[in-house]
Amino acid sequence: GAQAQSSVTIYGTVDAGISKTTGTTAQIGKRDNNKLGFRGVEDLGNGLKALFHLEIRYEPDTGTIEGVTRPLFQGQSRVGLQGGFGTVRLGRGLTAFQESITAFEPWNGLPAVAGFQTNLQVAGYTSDPLSPAGNSGNRFSNGVWYNSPVWGGFQFNGTFGTKDANGGPAVIGRGTALAPQYAANAQASAHPYSVSVTYNNGPFAAMAATERNAIETKLWSVAASYKPTTALKLMASYQQQDQDHTLRVNPETDAWVIGANYTMGPGKVLVGYGQKHPDGVLKTKEISLGYEYSLSARTYVYVDVSNRKLPVPVTAASDSSLNHYSLGIHHNF
Amino acid sequence: GAQAQSSVTIYGTVDAGISKTTGTTAQIGKRDNNKLGFRGVEDLGNGLKALFHLEIRYEPDTGTIEGVTRPLFQGQSRVGLQGGFGTVRLGRGLTAFQESITAFEPWNGLPAVAGFQTNLQVAGYTSDPLSPAGNSGNRFSNGVWYNSPVWGGFQFNGTFGTKDANGGPAVIGRGTALAPQYAANAQASAHPYSVSVTYNNGPFAAMAATERNAIETKLWSVAASYKPTTALKLMASYQQQDQDHTLRVNPETDAWVIGANYTMGPGKVLVGYGQKHPDGVLKTKEISLGYEYSLSARTYVYVDVSNRKLPVPVTAASDSSLNHYSLGIHHNF
Amino acid sequence: GAQAQSSVTIYGTVDAGISKTTGTTAQIGKRDNNKLGFRGVEDLGNGLKALFHLEIRYEPDTGTIEGVTRPLFQGQSRVGLQGGFGTVRLGRGLTAFQESITAFEPWNGLPAVAGFQTNLQVAGYTSDPLSPAGNSGNRFSNGVWYNSPVWGGFQFNGTFGTKDANGGPAVIGRGTALAPQYAANAQASAHPYSVSVTYNNGPFAAMAATERNAIETKLWSVAASYKPTTALKLMASYQQQDQDHTLRVNPETDAWVIGANYTMGPGKVLVGYGQKHPDGVLKTKEISLGYEYSLSARTYVYVDVSNRKLPVPVTAASDSSLNHYSLGIHHNF
Repeated sequence: GAQAQSSVTIYGTVDAGISKTTGTTAQIGKRDNNKLGFRGVEDLGNGLKALFHLEIRYEPDTGTIEGVTRPLFQGQSRVGLQGGFGTVRLGRGLTAFQESITAFEPWNGLPAVAGFQTNLQVAGYTSDPLSPAGNSGNRFSNGVWYNSPVWGGFQFNGTFGTKDANGGPAVIGRGTALAPQYAANAQASAHPYSVSVTYNNGPFAAMAATERNAIETKLWSVAASYKPTTALKLMASYQQQDQDHTLRVNPETDAWVIGANYTMGPGKVLVGYGQKHPDGVLKTKEISLGYEYSLSARTYVYVDVSNRKLPVPVTAASDSSLNHYSLGIHHNF
Repeated sequence: GAQAQSSVTIYGTVDAGISKTTGTTAQIGKRDNNKLGFRGVEDLGNGLKALFHLEIRYEPDTGTIEGVTRPLFQGQSRVGLQGGFGTVRLGRGLTAFQESITAFEPWNGLPAVAGFQTNLQVAGYTSDPLSPAGNSGNRFSNGVWYNSPVWGGFQFNGTFGTKDANGGPAVIGRGTALAPQYAANAQASAHPYSVSVTYNNGPFAAMAATERNAIETKLWSVAASYKPTTALKLMASYQQQDQDHTLRVNPETDAWVIGANYTMGPGKVLVGYGQKHPDGVLKTKEISLGYEYSLSARTYVYVDVSNRKLPVPVTAASDSSLNHYSLGIHHNF
Repeated sequence: GAQAQSSVTIYGTVDAGISKTTGTTAQIGKRDNNKLGFRGVEDLGNGLKALFHLEIRYEPDTGTIEGVTRPLFQGQSRVGLQGGFGTVRLGRGLTAFQESITAFEPWNGLPAVAGFQTNLQVAGYTSDPLSPAGNSGNRFSNGVWYNSPVWGGFQFNGTFGTKDANGGPAVIGRGTALAPQYAANAQASAHPYSVSVTYNNGPFAAMAATERNAIETKLWSVAASYKPTTALKLMASYQQQDQDHTLRVNPETDAWVIGANYTMGPGKVLVGYGQKHPDGVLKTKEISLGYEYSLSARTYVYVDVSNRKLPVPVTAASDSSLNHYSLGIHHNF
């Protein structure tokens, strides 16, 4: 039988740097999510474990919580059981799709401006359109998570949401401003879900995923990576978003990203290129180059350079070709 | 003399489950308060100790702080000294009444829908009517706490509040909407206090308490429990709220709750029944049944079933008889 | 080479007491900033270290974050590297001036009402006028920090801010209400900076500092302290604020503070006197007396008494001579 024992591990990331984007002043920015987390695992005996994660997110340049208004435990707040059957968790966290896709993104899913995860790689899709404005777009609140054991390299991951209202803004969709398709603080019109299958076999990895959010936008995704040598990882992904439930015209957006990581001693080079194109609209294109230099297993310094070409200028005064430069330090604890 | 030594203990609870109440969609809910706390005790020598508690509360289904808008350290923020004289603390926390009564409630004071603590067992009383809307109803801010040593099974507990304004909403009371009895951000009209005496003697326990809040609502309470065997605990409590200072009609509400806990190996059965009745108004009645199954000393899974009969339907569309079902996991760390 | 090793230290302060100021009700207040911090140092080898600080601030009387609306990590959120070259950090924290001056203030920079740091000793100056209202006045957000090694007792400290907008309110300045000199959420009109030189040599210490904030208000400061015996510390400082960039009349404010600390066994006496005078306006004068009694190296109890004479009454009903009394406990963990 298991003993009662207290066990909390504190973990986190502090990432801060100086960055500059075309048309804006230099600023102190971040390349990764900044985290302060509390987690624990309790051995219940007979191969059963209880586990939890509570993860604060914050902005190091101002000291506020992430995005100023996001939930305190924006990273995740989940509790569950793990055993021979896999892992079952309840609470809030990344969806199965969003958690699986980061391994196929050249910045490893970091929300860096030079990375592709926050926009291009998800084809503009948001997992959580009925949460308050400003909230994270790749999580479910009010969810149940299941991760299967790994069978011959395959793993199944599923996230299932309740229809519970969550204080979100109105979504006009196929309605009008006066009669939006989803009123403020609306419930989901269908149960949100996200499922992914991942495959890992030596140098080769792949995944396929599909997701439907609370306003019935659908997404599917396929991705693969290959390591011809231990130092080199090549990766590619393709995503398609279908907003037919809420958009009258051009409901489909597709996107693809290719990239590579190359490790040289303490150094690592990251390169990526991707495109996103809603039907009949000019493309968004992004090309990025990054370099990380490890000072230890927990700490590295980095430089990112990227260019994003938007279909149209963001504002009359701004360019449609945005260069971005970033230099900083990333520290895990 | 005492040595300088750093000493912080992290503790907490993650409780999440799936619940369903008549007239609402299924949701991820909680049965207990979710906590992430930091506490410490410093030995000052000669039997004297310094102690503190800082307790974050949060919602696991969305990752926000408790109730979205409550204080970060909603659970408590207190510091004080303990010695032969008892314990003196300053800050914010549960009042003496609210802290003492939980031992006589069949769900042990959990804010579970199936439990009685948040409404029935306090006869609808709130300890903190002049704090911002949405704040906790069973705490004093700006308070001083005293707990006596235990003398022959008896302990005295007192909480004394300042009159300090705390950003609360207006309370119309015996005034009008234009001239409320308490304006927004009003000071208390009298010093809030809460005193309880508890008695523990083997299988028998009892308490008596009285409290007055910042708008001079008064409450008194008596409760007792008895354990005929180590496995069975029987309990009963009676409360009366007197709102004469702010209500012109029917200022008195009384309530009673009876219940039992029965332990069978790793399982525990909880049953309870209670009524609340403001003068001349139909009664609120609640009956509940719960089951906890311990996976360890720190972790259990639970099922709750309860029925609440309200005097009138909550809305035109809703029932006046609400069934509630809950299934979840409770993990202490 | 350095090993990967997790290392977080939790530290903090809980300070709560009972205080009373002329014209207000008694309340539970604080004498020091209340902190809950997380910090770490990683040895990277070759004399190089990575370090971070994340410091929550809160109000113990109500459990809210500091000032109800300040950033979660109001204390600081910084990450950086330390080596033979000194220390470089990025993020948010006290400016070089604000960090250096506390050693020359009789309450050691505590924001106590009886202390001089929050108003008199900075001559009414604020380091961060373009942050949201209610925010701290002695920090830079979006900053880079440099502390030199100590050379023969001398150390150079510099803080440099970006011009990045930070959600602040409009500053009318030399403009009008309709056309304020700084619009809401304005960028800095010049790079904010703060530099100080400190000198420590046995019983003697001194500093000189100058700072310019985001709206080009300038401050300079000189201070010195001397310890004729190990038990006695004498100190004095002089500051001048120049608001010429935003004020048409009386842009200069100067202020001075003198004080002493005297240690007697576990007891410590604090005394101070200071004046602040904007050009042509009557003076603000403050005299204070405090006593700390240590229960351990981490815990003390305190009493403060002070009188502040304002040039004009704060409100029609209030006095221009305010007495303040405070009694409380201060616990570090």
